[in-house]
Parts: sequence; C-alpha cells; structure tokens
Amino acid sequence: MEAKSYILINGDGNLAYYSYYTKAYKGHIAYTPELGKYSILENGYIVVEGTKVKGVYKSLPKEYEYIEVENYGNRLIIPGFIDLHLHGSQLANRGLGLDLELMKWLNAHTFKEEARIKDLRYAETIYNETAKLLLKNGTTRAVIYGTLHRESTELLMNIVNKYGLGAYVGKVSQDKNSPDYLTENAVDAIKEEEVFLRDTINRYKLVKPIITPRFVPACSLELLKALGIMAQKYKVPVQSHLDEDLSEIDFVKEEYPQFKNYASIYDYDGLLGQKPTIMAHCVYLSDDEIRLLAKNKVYVAHCPTSNFNLSGSTAPIKKLIGKGIPVGLGTDIAAGHNISILKVMLQAIQASKVVYSRTHDEKDKLTSPEAFYLATKGGGSFFGKVGSFEEGYDFDALVIDDSNLVYVKPLSIEERIDRFIYIGDDRNIIKRFVAGRAV
Amino acid sequence: MEAKSYILINGDGNLAYYSYYTKAYKGHIAYTPELGKYSILENGYIVVEGTKVKGVYKSLPKEYEYIEVENYGNRLIIPGFIDLHLHGSQLANRGLGLDLELMKWLNAHTFKEEARIKDLRYAETIYNETAKLLLKNGTTRAVIYGTLHRESTELLMNIVNKYGLGAYVGKVSQDKNSPDYLTENAVDAIKEEEVFLRDTINRYKLVKPIITPRFVPACSLELLKALGIMAQKYKVPVQSHLDEDLSEIDFVKEEYPQFKNYASIYDYDGLLGQKPTIMAHCVYLSDDEIRLLAKNKVYVAHCPTSNFNLSGSTAPIKKLIGKGIPVGLGTDIAAGHNISILKVMLQAIQASKVVYSRTHDEKDKLTSPEAFYLATKGGGSFFGKVGSFEEGYDFDALVIDDSNLVYVKPLSIEERIDRFIYIGDDRNIIKRFVAGRAV
Ligand SMILES: [Zn+2]
Ligand SMILES: [Zn+2]
Repeated sequence: MEAKSYILINGDGNLAYYSYYTKAYKGHIAYTPELGKYSILENGYIVVEGTKVKGVYKSLPKEYEYIEVENYGNRLIIPGFIDLHLHGSQLANRGLGLDLELMKWLNAHTFKEEARIKDLRYAETIYNETAKLLLKNGTTRAVIYGTLHRESTELLMNIVNKYGLGAYVGKVSQDKNSPDYLTENAVDAIKEEEVFLRDTINRYKLVKPIITPRFVPACSLELLKALGIMAQKYKVPVQSHLDEDLSEIDFVKEEYPQFKNYASIYDYDGLLGQKPTIMAHCVYLSDDEIRLLAKNKVYVAHCPTSNFNLSGSTAPIKKLIGKGIPVGLGTDIAAGHNISILKVMLQAIQASKVVYSRTHDEKDKLTSPEAFYLATKGGGSFFGKVGSFEEGYDFDALVIDDSNLVYVKPLSIEERIDRFIYIGDDRNIIKRFVAGRAV
Repeated sequence: MEAKSYILINGDGNLAYYSYYTKAYKGHIAYTPELGKYSILENGYIVVEGTKVKGVYKSLPKEYEYIEVENYGNRLIIPGFIDLHLHGSQLANRGLGLDLELMKWLNAHTFKEEARIKDLRYAETIYNETAKLLLKNGTTRAVIYGTLHRESTELLMNIVNKYGLGAYVGKVSQDKNSPDYLTENAVDAIKEEEVFLRDTINRYKLVKPIITPRFVPACSLELLKALGIMAQKYKVPVQSHLDEDLSEIDFVKEEYPQFKNYASIYDYDGLLGQKPTIMAHCVYLSDDEIRLLAKNKVYVAHCPTSNFNLSGSTAPIKKLIGKGIPVGLGTDIAAGHNISILKVMLQAIQASKVVYSRTHDEKDKLTSPEAFYLATKGGGSFFGKVGSFEEGYDFDALVIDDSNLVYVKPLSIEERIDRFIYIGDDRNIIKRFVAGRAV
C-alpha cells in the first residue's frame, strides 16, 4: 500500500477528503467474529484506514467511492493466522527424531540445536528462514520462544520485525535441570532478562518482548519469582509450558510437594495471568487448574500436532473453551513438525475427534469454523484487536487463490474454506498483510 | 526409458550383450526389505532389466559397465507409494462436510457424488483428475473402488491404464440399504459383475479387476455368495470394508445374529482370503476376527486419516502386524481428505501414538521406517513383487529432490527420509516410474 492523499469531488459535487492510506480490498470475505460461525460476504469490500479495518461492506459506501480498490476477484480474503507457540531456534529440527521418547529427543536434538543458536551467524540463518517460512505459510503474528542467549534473541526480534511480522519474542529463562551449556545461574538469568526487556520494550512497533521461563522443571523458584516481579514492573506478558507430559507432571509434583498443582506454582510467582499469559499444551489440566486458568484468563496455546507427535495425547480443547479459557493454536516447532497454522487447524479438528471417540459427546468435536476462529481471532486477541475484520481491528489478512482446489462442481464460500483447511497449502496464499501493510 | 540394444566391447576386450531396456539409476537409494529398518545405499546404482530390478550396487558391476546410467546425483530414490484403498469417484468431495456424522455425511455428499459418476462425461473428468493426482503425489499402484456403474468403472480402468499406474479397480456391488439410485437387484448386480470381469480381466497388463462388495450392510447374502463364487471362478482378488464404525458393527450384529462376528460373514461367503483380499479400516477387530484375518492372510488397508476424520478412533496397527496380518496404507478418499500416501504415513505414525497413549506400551508406536514399509512393500506385496528394490521386484520408484528441506545442518539419508515424511510434499517428487517405465 502506498501513501496517497485524495481530494476529490464526490457524486454530490462536494469536496471529499480521504485520509492517507485509506483503501479497499475486494473479494470473498470470510472471518469469524465469534466461535462457531463464519461471517461471509461474497464480492464484498474491506475498507482499511491506515492500519485498521473500518468496515466490511456489500458495496462501497458513498464516502469511499473514490478510494483505491484492490480487486481480488474470485479469491478469498481471510484474517492472517496466529501462531501462539513456537520455538524459533528449532527450525532445522523439523521432522527429526520423533520416534524417540521425549527426554531422549530433547537431549539428542532440541538442546544441541538451541546451543548452536549462541553463534549469531548461525542464529541469523535460522531466524531468517523461520520468519520467511512463517509468512509463506500465512502466519502474520507469532509468539516465539528464543533461547537462553540474549543477543541471539534480540537478533530474532530484529529479523522478525524486518519481515513485517507481528510478534512477542522471549529470551528463555532457565537455571536448573538443563544441560550446563543451556543454564544460567539465577542471578545472571535475572540480570540478562532485565537487560533484554529494557533493550527491546520500545524498540519496535509490532514486535515486543515476552517473559519466558522455559517451564517449572527448568527454573528455580527464585528465578520464577523475579520474573513475575519483572512482568509487573515492565508490564510485559508471559509465556511458558504447562501439563504437556505425564512424566513432566510427576517430576513437578515430586519437586514441589508444597504446591497444590503445577499451575499454582506459576500463579504463586505472578506468572499466571497477573499479566497476559500464554501456557502451551495444557493436555492434562486438573479441574482445579482449569478453574485457575479460566479465572485468570490465561491463554492456552493448543498444539495438537506436537501432542500427537510426542505423546499421542491431546488437550480436551472444547472442554477448556467451554470453561471460559481463551484458546489459540500453536505449531510448537519442532515437536510440531509443521510451521503452517492451516495444517494445525486440521490437526486440532482431528485431535478433538480423538477426544470424542472417548466421550461420545458431539460437543467435544471442533468444527471447521471453530478451528478457523482459534487460528485467527482466538489467538489474535492476545495481540489486541487482531484476527478479525470487525471495525477497529488491525488489517491482518491473507488472499487465498484456491482455483486449483475447486473444480468440476461449484462450491459455496464456506465449502471453499473447508476445502482450503483440508487440502490447501502455502501455494494457495498469494498475498499477506500485517497491520495494513503488504508483507 | 527408451528401447535400446547394446553390443559393446567391455574392458576385457570381449563382446558384451545387453538386453533391451537394461539401465541403471544412480542416487541415494532407500527401501525397506523388512519392517522396521531402512536399507540405504548412498550414491548407489539400481540396475533395471526391462521392468524389473536386477540389483542394487555400490558401484556398477563389470557386466553393466556400459549400460546407460540416469544420474540423480544428491537426490533420493525410493520405491513408489501404494494406496490400498480409495474411492475414485470421491475426488470432488475432499474436505467437504467432515463436521457431519457418518450417516449424514454419506447421504449429503458421498452417495450423491457416486450417482453423478453414472454420467460417463462426468466420470471421465473426475477419473482423469484422480489418476493425475495419484501420480503427482507419488502413488504408483492403487486399489480403487469405482461405483455401481459398470461402464464408468471400465472407463476408470482405461484412464488409470492410460496414465501408466498399476491398479486393481472394482465395480461396486450393492443391492440393499442404499439409496434407490445406488441399488441394483441381486440378479442384475451378479450379471453386471460377471460382464465386468470378463470385459476387463485380460484387457490391461497392470490394471486388473477386483471384486468389490461395498460392505456387508449394503449386500444381501445371495449377492455376497455369488461374488465369492466368481472370485474362485475368475481367480480375482476381493476388497471391502470391515469394522470401521461402531454403529456399522451394531447394525451387522442385528442383521446377522447367526454369525459369530462381522468378518465371518465375508469368510462364509468366500470373500475373506480364499482369494487375495483387502479389508479397509479394521478399527475394531475382535480377537476372533484378528485370528481369522491372520489365518487367511487378509490385508488390512489402514486408513488413519479417514479414521481420524470420521470417528477419531484408529486401528491398533502394531498389534495387527504383530499377529501376522499383512498391512498397507490407504488414503480412503474422500473420508480421507488427502490423496498423498506420504501424508498418510505421518498420520499412521500419529495414530499409533494415540494407541500408545492408552496402552503406554512403546511397541504400539509405529516408527518412520515402519510407516515407510507399510507405504511401499507392505501394501506393494498385494501386487506381487512390488514396493522394494530387491532382485526381481518391479521397478516402481520415485526420485525425491529434497533440497528445499535440507539446509544449514547436513543430514544423514535416514534423516532426510524422516524429514521428507514429515514436511515433504508433491513438490519434492520429481520423477515417477511404474514397472520400469517413466510415467
Ligand atoms: Zn514448546
Ligand atoms: Zn472406503
């Protein structure tokens, strides 16, 4: 989009002023203002003022009749995808070692790769590729784990910003139960985190820091407490992992018998919704934990591909949504092999059917429009007004050319989206916008 | 490959005669002669005499030193994929209506689409696209349900043959519990099947008929019995569905209380291994049925994507393999949305981990090389010596260019295959061979 100002005579012969950047996009518009139902407008217009959606219209209102229209014809225009959880350092590990058990896999692949990221040149290569692949696959906003290494993580933010993605990025804090080469002592970890926050908190418009304790088993209470205090002091959000694996949960139980459950350790340390918080996985939440997350409005980053790959278990996602927990989707690269949220949508639908196969309750099934909501507005709301085309929302959008997927029999717009979810891929995404800007 | 004859002087000064079509393919060769382990040869040669593999060599043996070598450099050469179960008529239904329950889905989508296939022009469009997409995705042999319509099914065989695929294709037999427009009476169904078999049994080299009762609920015992007799008379194989869905099983139990179980109805009618037989799904086999299938060497077409989509349940596939049942993979288009056996491999791995999440027995997990075996030699053995590069096997092969998947850190051949299984797609398949012929 280029900067333009318009001073034109409208149909009534009056002068009409148009602000810089006001523009319309035409196509078949689909989004999910609420869970469970598409809002669809065939051959509609989205008017964008600067970075934000002004409205969606069947025909252009009079006051916009002279603005520039970018016409996408028979293509679909949908909100950009939101990835609430991935490890930016792990791109080169996709699809490797997933026959191994979790701990063997972490040692053989994950930790070693994280250590290599200390090398800024290596980090630059990996992080450039990560940012490019996220955009290629339609992700417009992401919440990303960096590594222990502050400088590499700051580089990650720089790179993500350069590509025009919106993101929260975390320097990982961990001071125990990790390989030596991935452990800071608590004092250094706290100091480095504070430097990281000060360095980055005001540096970019769409890329911001997030406090990132690796997870309870890898952090001392001292470190967790300090991170909770910094979340308040700097008003920054928090991300971590919770209840992914049964052996992880046993470990936490043994280590911290004084706590009622895993989630309450984060809560005690001010890291569970005191500032906006995302917890990845949440496969095995107890009822007490469900209540706690719902009360504190903690986001669950649902990562079904990762869960399938590592444990074969899956979060009872419709139940969590029903209890009032906000939910978005995460790729969890590289326990999740696929960097496409489109593919994660489908795996979320499949995972919900696995839950259904146990409960035989139709309500446990995630429908296509529900998965679409989680992938857009569900996760997007963590970023503010993101993930929808309602008035005031940031214009994050994808243009979908599905002409190779539709043939022989004509399909409704809803059917075209379903088909895109099931058999589409990055080849169908022909244009991406983040906060009004083509990226 | 072109027809050529060589009469050359070899290194010893002697005349060496090479048969027509003898040729070598060079690259990184990977295949699975048995379940569980790759056989890998880096920079190796596959010598192909006519349609068949002569051997795999580290360097070209003296007697082949003058044959033509097609050099694929750093690329992978693997056996073609085998799809043991798909509905050729359902291509235009991929990704549609999968939020619905099975019966609603069948009525709203499956049956209506099958009815349209009666129109030969419509059938031609769909079947051309099906054959093209199978090859594009690396399937070199397929076992395909046509529809009730004999002429359309004969057209399907013609089209599949034209593209050079190997296939078994079935005219579907069904005479009850189906929509009127998809029901023949038993007498007509039997007659039409016999015409179909006579028409097609000797028409093509690599495309053959297969007897295809839709499944027990849609067939009278009279029809099943007649099909079993024809299987003997014409020496043709059999395919059907078994134990896919709990309500299907209940239905069969009520309809046929005199039978011990679902599988024994096929057995009684001579349709369960009396001639080579494939049963799709087998999600809920009883122990008696497992014994029966193992004894009769009945193939299970494991269709994990379809099972995830429709019921969320999955066959305990390692258990079935352990009991001696031969297993291959099926896409089950369109209950399975994805026509790529590569993607089905991954879903088979994930499905096995869902089984593991219940049993906590590591043996229930399907590893990558095991999934690879099922996708190649496992299913291929239904076609004879197909799905491997051992001596005497038909040369069905794919050349894989994975250069877009390998970067930054070098990978072993085994890791490259793993990565291809997890994040590769049709773009990585740059060449396909069926029985020695490039297709
Ligand atoms: Zn993670
Ligand atoms: Zn089927």
